[in-house]
Amino acid sequence: MEKIKKDHRPLILVTNDDGVQAKGLKALVEAVRPFGDVVVIAPDSGMSGMSHAITVTRPLYLTKVLEEEGLTIFKSSGTPSDCVKLALHEVLGDKPDYLVSGINHGTNSSISMHYSGTVAGAKEGTFNAIPSIAFSLLDHSADADFSHAVNYVRQVFELVLEHGMAEGVCYNVNMPKGEIKGLRVCRQAKGNWIEGFEKRYEPGTGKPYYWMTGSYVNLDTDAEDTDEWTLDHGYAALVPFTIDPTCMETVSRLKSLGVEDRLPVSN
Amino acid sequence: MEKIKKDHRPLILVTNDDGVQAKGLKALVEAVRPFGDVVVIAPDSGMSGMSHAITVTRPLYLTKVLEEEGLTIFKSSGTPSDCVKLALHEVLGDKPDYLVSGINHGTNSSISMHYSGTVAGAKEGTFNAIPSIAFSLLDHSADADFSHAVNYVRQVFELVLEHGMAEGVCYNVNMPKGEIKGLRVCRQAKGNWIEGFEKRYEPGTGKPYYWMTGSYVNLDTDAEDTDEWTLDHGYAALVPFTIDPTCMETVSRLKSLGVEDRLPVSN
Repeated sequence: MEKIKKDHRPLILVTNDDGVQAKGLKALVEAVRPFGDVVVIAPDSGMSGMSHAITVTRPLYLTKVLEEEGLTIFKSSGTPSDCVKLALHEVLGDKPDYLVSGINHGTNSSISMHYSGTVAGAKEGTFNAIPSIAFSLLDHSADADFSHAVNYVRQVFELVLEHGMAEGVCYNVNMPKGEIKGLRVCRQAKGNWIEGFEKRYEPGTGKPYYWMTGSYVNLDTDAEDTDEWTLDHGYAALVPFTIDPTCMETVSRLKSLGVEDRLPVSN
Repeated sequence: MEKIKKDHRPLILVTNDDGVQAKGLKALVEAVRPFGDVVVIAPDSGMSGMSHAITVTRPLYLTKVLEEEGLTIFKSSGTPSDCVKLALHEVLGDKPDYLVSGINHGTNSSISMHYSGTVAGAKEGTFNAIPSIAFSLLDHSADADFSHAVNYVRQVFELVLEHGMAEGVCYNVNMPKGEIKGLRVCRQAKGNWIEGFEKRYEPGTGKPYYWMTGSYVNLDTDAEDTDEWTLDHGYAALVPFTIDPTCMETVSRLKSLGVEDRLPVSN
């Protein structure tokens, strides 16, 4: 396979975690296509909740499904992160100028970003020094309405075209359903998922099994500078986040406690 | 199933990503058992590279495999993150006092922490306000020698017993092979994996497939305060990291650029 090289226009890599057939992926391609040549590499099936998983114990498959002027689409058996790695090392002859991931069917705000394959796809771009943005819409239905989101994605993309992105920083953009009142740059809300496993029994053997269910609990309800507050109030939320999550405050604290001197040579 | 309640001693939850049979898991149990009652819930097969994946499209299985004084072991069909969720909501009647994950067979330093199921298992504990630590040894062989590591894990655990851990902060501890010269508290090195996919062809169909290979590249070679430097010099590396990776510097920068005023209502 001949690798895809950059032509006159910016080269834009697109992935997602809902799979190559997802409506949100088509919306994202529609949004960014005016800005450059688009190459999509997306999972051939749903990869929601796959986080930054990579496939190391199985081989990966890669198939071209569409090729037209300014747009080439591949599907892969891998995760979003695998898709980006395949793109960079097997499909593209030049480093892409931008990476966009999504538009995810469903929220990836607050702590949910850690579970998201869509956000991980964007992170993988940031690992490779590519300006990368994850987009999600707060509607997880397969037939979600992306009509307001397309225009908004385009405007956020224009911001990045104009101002660039800092090295090691990725953007996580969540958009409310329907009309979007505006954009807020915010921090990730403190929150958690409270699981409620539904226990059932196999009809033949009586063996128990569990379906994970759960509901999100916002632990940051008083604050107005979070992504959750922003989305609750009808705005799109942009959370810039770093690839290096080291807590330097704790580094200093542990050093000042003298812990390094207290743990001697192992024996 | 009756839930396991806390007795007089601290309740310690243990998981990993190499699976319930892994030598590193046994080493970790040996290390922390003196400090409390231990409940292990680990994947029934290897989950390396599964990151923070959760199982939402399949049911989960959970089986008790051992019960003795001060130690109960379960295996689950899920990922490390699933295991922790099952522990908190189905197995334990009280919140555990501590969570330890590992000892991973192989490094989870620098950017590799993002791909690691072992680190994600610990993160899931931090999400639930449990002091949580991931441990890894720089030897990915199934028969790795954990004899130096056990004593070191014990000392790091004693630090946490004495000083506690800040809310929202998780510890990622990597240990070199063999003798350990001491402990250093450090930041995550900048680096990346450069993939080299090995392309092969199915014997019957001729269809191509790809095996992911790769090598780590340290992009932070001049610095002496990173986990990579520390490990290269024979020390164990403790990187404290935050669950909220928001880059507040970029939040301020984008706000000062006036981006919020420039993105109006969608239409």
